[in-house]
Amino acid sequence: MAEPLFRRLALVGIGLIGSSVARIARERGDIAAEIVVNARTQKSLDRVMELGIADRVELDPARAVAGADCVMLCAPVGAFAALAEAIAPVLSPGAILTDVGSTKQSVIRDVGPLVPERVHFVPAHPLAGTEHSGPDAGFTTLFQGRWALITPPPGTDEAAIAKVEELWRRCGSMTRRMEPAHHDRVLAIVSHLPHLIAFTICGTADDLEAESRQAVLNFAASGFRDFTRIAASDPVMWRDIFLNNREALLEMLARFTEDAQAMARAVRWGDAAYIEDKVERGRKIRRSLIELKQA
Amino acid sequence: MAEPLFRRLALVGIGLIGSSVARIARERGDIAAEIVVNARTQKSLDRVMELGIADRVELDPARAVAGADCVMLCAPVGAFAALAEAIAPVLSPGAILTDVGSTKQSVIRDVGPLVPERVHFVPAHPLAGTEHSGPDAGFTTLFQGRWALITPPPGTDEAAIAKVEELWRRCGSMTRRMEPAHHDRVLAIVSHLPHLIAFTICGTADDLEAESRQAVLNFAASGFRDFTRIAASDPVMWRDIFLNNREALLEMLARFTEDAQAMARAVRWGDAAYIEDKVERGRKIRRSLIELKQA
Repeated sequence: MAEPLFRRLALVGIGLIGSSVARIARERGDIAAEIVVNARTQKSLDRVMELGIADRVELDPARAVAGADCVMLCAPVGAFAALAEAIAPVLSPGAILTDVGSTKQSVIRDVGPLVPERVHFVPAHPLAGTEHSGPDAGFTTLFQGRWALITPPPGTDEAAIAKVEELWRRCGSMTRRMEPAHHDRVLAIVSHLPHLIAFTICGTADDLEAESRQAVLNFAASGFRDFTRIAASDPVMWRDIFLNNREALLEMLARFTEDAQAMARAVRWGDAAYIEDKVERGRKIRRSLIELKQA
Repeated sequence: MAEPLFRRLALVGIGLIGSSVARIARERGDIAAEIVVNARTQKSLDRVMELGIADRVELDPARAVAGADCVMLCAPVGAFAALAEAIAPVLSPGAILTDVGSTKQSVIRDVGPLVPERVHFVPAHPLAGTEHSGPDAGFTTLFQGRWALITPPPGTDEAAIAKVEELWRRCGSMTRRMEPAHHDRVLAIVSHLPHLIAFTICGTADDLEAESRQAVLNFAASGFRDFTRIAASDPVMWRDIFLNNREALLEMLARFTEDAQAMARAVRWGDAAYIEDKVERGRKIRRSLIELKQA
């Protein structure tokens, strides 16, 4: 077995992502010699100990990260500013501070200024997830064959970046470096907007008169069901993502809304060629995904 | 084996739905003693004979339906008016004319007035499908455990309705009768709007600058992928559905757009409670589907 990458890995937050990393680190042994977990509630920490996925649990984030050579923020991104404030004073010189948040410019904005000079801040985002959350939701194959995007600010220590990349490779991911603003735009269209749409259409359906609402549930298999799967995700996590990728999300939603209005106009005026063309583009994109083995 | 329901079943159109019905009728033997298939191209008919899923094929719809005691329209709904005109003169007295179209008011509007007095017109819609189309796309389990909605106009012969219901039950479906306008509203929200949204967001993504577009394809697994699956469907079929359920689709799209704009406003102004509430509703609907075993 390879030497562990880190002496002590502190996971701040232990939901789907954090608990998957903990399980993998436990199973492999070559990621961290010791795993310390912090969560907001004692109940979560008790569960972590029952699951046997940490060496030690701490309800106080500062106590959890003290002495760790790698600290990974795995909480909803809206909690990062307060967490960074709490842990910054005790971060060890030379330690790596990384995260798994779905928005990267906000994380750099909220956490960056608080990071002590000799600590290496390497923001990252593993593109993996299910609609489940909490310490029980994690599993060791979550990151297998999926991307982990690494978005270090300019001037970040190269050795620290390489260690974070190696961590994600050992978790099963492929890694790619990306500029934070580009990350946020791409995620806005591939993930944040689809989720916003899915949440919204569930609400639209739920507002229908009772008779239609029941029928929606009965006949959901006709397409609606695919939207509800992605709408089943954690409310606090998604609230924080929307609020922390505001600009890019609103821009993509505005583009989408214009396009949907153009489609509505074509439907209203019977512009068959326009509609066919748009449907044909959907097929082309699907085919491209299949060729890229992403579908 | 039970007595075949029909002496001769004529399938007008042989895509995913028609060719699945043909395969099932072939396999079971108790749906029709003879299967005649009509399609727009000789190529499709040749393929049908190669697949061995019909007794006879006819390029002329009138020749295909002559002498049949059950005629099922399985073409895109936009073709129904012309098909009804072509076949009406040769429909046998006492025959059942049914269809599988995804819009029901338009079918009743386009076909109803052309149906000869002694022919029983029983519009229906099996809620089943995949993103694939054509005679090769069909399979015998397509309708298993899925709904077939029967939407007869007032005054339709009860025995004819019962025979169409029995046909769908033998295909594996559960059946339910529904008022055509209610059908169209429900399908607008569970199927037509989700498809319109999926086609649209694929176009929105495809319009991004080249660098982002490539990233969309690379990182599609984050939610976007679920939209592309339903966006891969047949362009002509969907063009026709949109144009033939115009009113209900535009109403549902208007409601959805209002809701999406309200969500955009909440994101812009940081209304965390509003966003959380909407996400929570998505989860509730998902849970209801799981309880109903529709997810």
